[in-house]
Amino acid sequence: MTRTVKQDRAVRTRAALIRAGAEVFGECGFAGASVTKIADRAGLTLGAVYFHFKSKEELARLIVAEQPKLVVPPQPSQGLQHAVDVTLTWAYQLLDDPVLIAGARLVMDQDQFVPPEENSHQQWTQILLKDFQVAERRRELRAGADIQAIARLIVSTCTGAQMHAYMESGRADLPHRVEEMWQVLLPGIAVPSAAKKLEFGEDRGRGR
Amino acid sequence: MTRTVKQDRAVRTRAALIRAGAEVFGECGFAGASVTKIADRAGLTLGAVYFHFKSKEELARLIVAEQPKLVVPPQPSQGLQHAVDVTLTWAYQLLDDPVLIAGARLVMDQDQFVPPEENSHQQWTQILLKDFQVAERRRELRAGADIQAIARLIVSTCTGAQMHAYMESGRADLPHRVEEMWQVLLPGIAVPSAAKKLEFGEDRGRGR
Repeated sequence: MTRTVKQDRAVRTRAALIRAGAEVFGECGFAGASVTKIADRAGLTLGAVYFHFKSKEELARLIVAEQPKLVVPPQPSQGLQHAVDVTLTWAYQLLDDPVLIAGARLVMDQDQFVPPEENSHQQWTQILLKDFQVAERRRELRAGADIQAIARLIVSTCTGAQMHAYMESGRADLPHRVEEMWQVLLPGIAVPSAAKKLEFGEDRGRGR
Repeated sequence: MTRTVKQDRAVRTRAALIRAGAEVFGECGFAGASVTKIADRAGLTLGAVYFHFKSKEELARLIVAEQPKLVVPPQPSQGLQHAVDVTLTWAYQLLDDPVLIAGARLVMDQDQFVPPEENSHQQWTQILLKDFQVAERRRELRAGADIQAIARLIVSTCTGAQMHAYMESGRADLPHRVEEMWQVLLPGIAVPSAAKKLEFGEDRGRGR
């Protein structure tokens, strides 16, 4: 077997394990998951799992860290529109992506496997903060807008909204709740000309 | 024993059970709690517990239903100020009230013991909606403010903020996060004269 074939196989096995881990964490939560269950789900031996991950903590940490990389809006955008697109893409993708579903289920248990400065709240706040810095340069925001506070608020709202949407509609109405959040926030944070130009709806979150 | 003495004792036992249940749910979560653990914590027999509650589900449901009754702002207020006061009182009280701490811990498990229309998200949304209806009559809100959407947003933000504050500061910075939420929201939802009059800080949430 050549080196490349071996590497390809390792990459595929790792991807299969992340997916199997995501499914098991999504169904059983962190406490209910075990390396054995994850190996069974992936159709691999325990040895194969431990070759890639030294513990369920490490796999859970990776699944949380993967989330922002998976949320790629279908259309290019900048500043405020990018912030809108990221939240809508996350909301649509959370309807059926096992890695995002696992991330949502693991959010309350993160303190068991993620260092505080790496938790998902911090990661998403940093992503939105960058969008708002661009939005500031593009003069899309009102004078004096506290972009740190706005970024934190949006992450908290999305966290709470996904929990409530989960209980009330199996998350089906999450994209609508995210759009509603922007409609409430925009008059206070964006200049009217910038707010008026923003696009919403399924196109921004899922493509056609 | 007179009838009144018996009734007094029943009321005290019930209160002791709610407190013991709150402590156990707060520490162990819904899945980890059991009627035996709750009876032990309260120093009562299993029989005494089952005299008052037929299951841990019933006790958990009662603890969730109790939350809004416990959150009574220390100063009288109406409309927008009352909405601010309720959220700040909740944030301060969540720092040390076992029944509120249990409610926060149980929020993700509610679908196991609370009918959807009674869940805590719905309860709090209704409370804030009433405040915003008063605020509308007092002309504190901007024309066209969607008070249903604002109430839902605030409840989602508070839910997410308490989870993040729990992970990052053991909830110590929750009152600050709630105040920050209002500072971001107010320019978009309240008329400037009403926003300017609002009071924040520990006085509004905990009294002196």
